[in-house]
Amino acid sequence: MKAAVYYGKKDIRVEDWEDRPLQSDEVKVKVAWIGICGSDLHEYVHGPLNTPEEEDEFTGRTLPFPLGHEFTGIVDEVGSDVTRVAKGDRVVINPALTLDNQPEGFDNTEGVATLGLNRPGGFAQYVNVPETVAHKVPEDLSLKYAALTEPQAVAIQAIKESGLKFGETVAVIGVGPIGIATILGAKGAGAKRIVAIDLSDERLNLAKEMGADAVYNSKDYTSDQILENEGFENGFDVTFEVAGVAPTFVQSIDLTRARGQVVILSIFSKEINWNPAQLTKSFVNVKASLGYTYDTFLDTMELIENERINSPKMVTSEIKLDEVPDGFELLANDKKQAKILVNVDGEDN
Amino acid sequence: MKAAVYYGKKDIRVEDWEDRPLQSDEVKVKVAWIGICGSDLHEYVHGPLNTPEEEDEFTGRTLPFPLGHEFTGIVDEVGSDVTRVAKGDRVVINPALTLDNQPEGFDNTEGVATLGLNRPGGFAQYVNVPETVAHKVPEDLSLKYAALTEPQAVAIQAIKESGLKFGETVAVIGVGPIGIATILGAKGAGAKRIVAIDLSDERLNLAKEMGADAVYNSKDYTSDQILENEGFENGFDVTFEVAGVAPTFVQSIDLTRARGQVVILSIFSKEINWNPAQLTKSFVNVKASLGYTYDTFLDTMELIENERINSPKMVTSEIKLDEVPDGFELLANDKKQAKILVNVDGEDN
Repeated sequence: MKAAVYYGKKDIRVEDWEDRPLQSDEVKVKVAWIGICGSDLHEYVHGPLNTPEEEDEFTGRTLPFPLGHEFTGIVDEVGSDVTRVAKGDRVVINPALTLDNQPEGFDNTEGVATLGLNRPGGFAQYVNVPETVAHKVPEDLSLKYAALTEPQAVAIQAIKESGLKFGETVAVIGVGPIGIATILGAKGAGAKRIVAIDLSDERLNLAKEMGADAVYNSKDYTSDQILENEGFENGFDVTFEVAGVAPTFVQSIDLTRARGQVVILSIFSKEINWNPAQLTKSFVNVKASLGYTYDTFLDTMELIENERINSPKMVTSEIKLDEVPDGFELLANDKKQAKILVNVDGEDN
Repeated sequence: MKAAVYYGKKDIRVEDWEDRPLQSDEVKVKVAWIGICGSDLHEYVHGPLNTPEEEDEFTGRTLPFPLGHEFTGIVDEVGSDVTRVAKGDRVVINPALTLDNQPEGFDNTEGVATLGLNRPGGFAQYVNVPETVAHKVPEDLSLKYAALTEPQAVAIQAIKESGLKFGETVAVIGVGPIGIATILGAKGAGAKRIVAIDLSDERLNLAKEMGADAVYNSKDYTSDQILENEGFENGFDVTFEVAGVAPTFVQSIDLTRARGQVVILSIFSKEINWNPAQLTKSFVNVKASLGYTYDTFLDTMELIENERINSPKMVTSEIKLDEVPDGFELLANDKKQAKILVNVDGEDN
């Protein structure tokens, strides 16, 4: 079959590739639509990082193989022990391969493995997945938009964790794809006003298109100036930190009201110098969110199905499987891109 | 009159001292009982820090003057504009002299001034205070125990901020006087199990006497060992950080369960090196608490009055006004001391 196979940094080859034979607890999915995720891009630009150059400790798999974990498709074949889905079913993949496959609690991030990073993913015509990760897509939801469930779920989990209430105010610092998904999610949740902050005017323009009520370039506005401009004495009810550097960490607290909530959605790659007295001065609450629970994934699909979140808006480009390497380059270089979807089977389904 | 006058570092003199004449909005209080606070001690050992060597920006007052803000007494004289209290009233002082005297919201700590630090306090036979800080003490509550309202209120505010629920588990890192007040408060709030952590065995013994269910010396136990010993898979529901250094900041997060709450009660004097990814790995929520709202102060007095908190237990020594300098030395050097009360008027009231 044809696949976009990841070999390492800046090396994705569209070629013939075959996975190991289907296991008894697996289903073979004919891929319909798949999105390029920021973590895929991270592997492409800086990797291998979270992909196995040597045998993966959770999955036993090793590169090269196709990346890709935001996808939908149609069940083409089922292993002998499979009971939950059948050939012909339209499915979306929840790629979190946790220790015992999707614990209810999702209490920590140890032992989290991801389909498409720790084992072969969906940038291919077909992919074998454990049956436990495949969920049926409702009839009235297209496979195209169901493929947005995974990236949108990351933002919905963060919004749930934030305790955001209807009519509150939201700041989003850093408007890459996850920041955009957070804006769409906060809008769906009924935030009264949503403000986006970034260093790129292109990204801020995109944020505005996606529904941000106001945008501020940090080159032009200090936190105090943003608050003054917004007419706040104190700050936003909820701030999402999606940038992951020391200045934006401090800014996220500066922008939030007393007893408001900061949620960190970025992953800090290194230590910062910081005085916890910033919390004593501000009474701001700080937590982080990563991934999503089993329930949030399914909730998100229903929110998209019932058009409570305008996730389809995040799609900025549609490409074919042959164009996957170009798609990675596009996402790496064009800040006007939020979600690039690959239409693998060429069907409008 | 006689007063224990603070001149500066390690210099408190019991001598004759007179305050300026009573102002029209002030009441003269004949001091009954007053506690020595950690912030008083901080001035004594390292100060002047928060006391005015030059004219104070909020109060216009300058050292030398008596410290002391945890006190009760009897109204001896009232200024011409005073309406809330009358001569002979038994009163407790809420020493927070905020900008507009006790805003309801208590949204941040800017502009907070304290009676006994920014203007003369209660280590004296008499003290003039704005009428707004004097609150009547219920008849069935002694002035001795009402003097514990202030230090206990700091812990009660932190417990309110923590969202602690009946039957949850609590860790307290650092068991100086505020840590002890937190243990007593958490016990009153119905915490199922309260664990104290410190580097001093003497303090830990005191914590045990005050009601901690278990104590751990950080020299002997890592965070993992504490959790293992407690039989937790994940961590405590709420952790109070009352030590204020980098290792205890990290430990407070390590000891707390996913979606549990850390409340910082210490004031960090310098920056720490820390990776916010610790929050991403743990899903722990972090906030700080400082001081108390107007309501919490009065709530705390009622909790003490109705014996819902065993605050009297924190009293480890009782001394006289003449002994105040010795009391400061005792609190500085004897880790078995939690709250030293000064019986200024010599009455058992």
